Amino acid sequence: MEKIEIGADRLHYPMPCSLIGANVDGRPNYLTVAWFSMANPKPPYVMAAMNKSHYTNAGVKANKTFSINIPSAELVEKMDYCGLVSGGRADKSGVFETFYGKLETAPMAVECAFNAECRLVQTVNLPMEELFIGEIAGAYCEERYITNGVPDMRKINPLLLLMAQKMYASLGPDVAPAWGAGKKLMK
Amino acid sequence: MEKIEIGADRLHYPMPCSLIGANVDGRPNYLTVAWFSMANPKPPYVMAAMNKSHYTNAGVKANKTFSINIPSAELVEKMDYCGLVSGGRADKSGVFETFYGKLETAPMAVECAFNAECRLVQTVNLPMEELFIGEIAGAYCEERYITNGVPDMRKINPLLLLMAQKMYASLGPDVAPAWGAGKKLMK
Repeated sequence: MEKIEIGADRLHYPMPCSLIGANVDGRPNYLTVAWFSMANPKPPYVMAAMNKSHYTNAGVKANKTFSINIPSAELVEKMDYCGLVSGGRADKSGVFETFYGKLETAPMAVECAFNAECRLVQTVNLPMEELFIGEIAGAYCEERYITNGVPDMRKINPLLLLMAQKMYASLGPDVAPAWGAGKKLMK
Repeated sequence: MEKIEIGADRLHYPMPCSLIGANVDGRPNYLTVAWFSMANPKPPYVMAAMNKSHYTNAGVKANKTFSINIPSAELVEKMDYCGLVSGGRADKSGVFETFYGKLETAPMAVECAFNAECRLVQTVNLPMEELFIGEIAGAYCEERYITNGVPDMRKINPLLLLMAQKMYASLGPDVAPAWGAGKKLMK
């Protein structure tokens, strides 16, 4: 073993990219967020860590709703722009066309391949971030991104952030079946 | 716009794959976890949602430590096996060679390209999951996975779970620079 100790400042993995939407001061705003994940299966909860300095956080807390939008690689410039510029300094309401679902206050970006509107369930206060936990109330997708009734990652072509390399990457080829590849090791 | 409403049971995105390590009843145990993320930059916090039914959870709570290990694609069978079989039914302590860092009770898998040992900071109780928030206390990597002092995703070749497709995929080509591609849209 040749493990060396490196900086403990970060977890290194490919971070999935999203745009988190919220109405702030009555206007839709979208923030690039790569620190999010599913959190619970039933009911379906998501979690997203958002720096307290972000303009978007106030909208999430005021409306108690937010959206998670998954953009395709072709939206990389607009997605990156939403992480470079604060909604407090520039009006980002026109970057994407907005639609609303049943929650009525969670703006979703039409151009993004998959959209989920969420009801805020809990906010966990961390040193620099607010961790928003939300329940998915509605999910939306265009027919062209769907295969066998579910959103197809091959059609969506999502982005992954390689944070240390400051690079967005795409999804690569299939490797092996999940809940399958390991069966040969079962006794 | 041709958005259709689909099942609101899940968020669809490429989920990064990890093995979470904990000592349970004095033995190292590794669980496949794709619902995790960075949570705070300073101090560096991670968060991971783990179903309450999992054997590993008791070890995290007992020791107040756990590890996050990022496997390369070549470990796909062992990684999948750790998600198929509970440590309560099979002894998974021999699936990987284990090493320990400064926390002494967070087992890390030698074969995994990147390892982080974490001190449990907070546990959030969700309906079916426990959300563990931990501070990274130490990080380890082999020299062969490092470029310019940081772990290189191109050398690590990590796995992404496409949950609806029940498939593990690899990382694809670079698309555009992060904190760069969107600059042309700034006024």
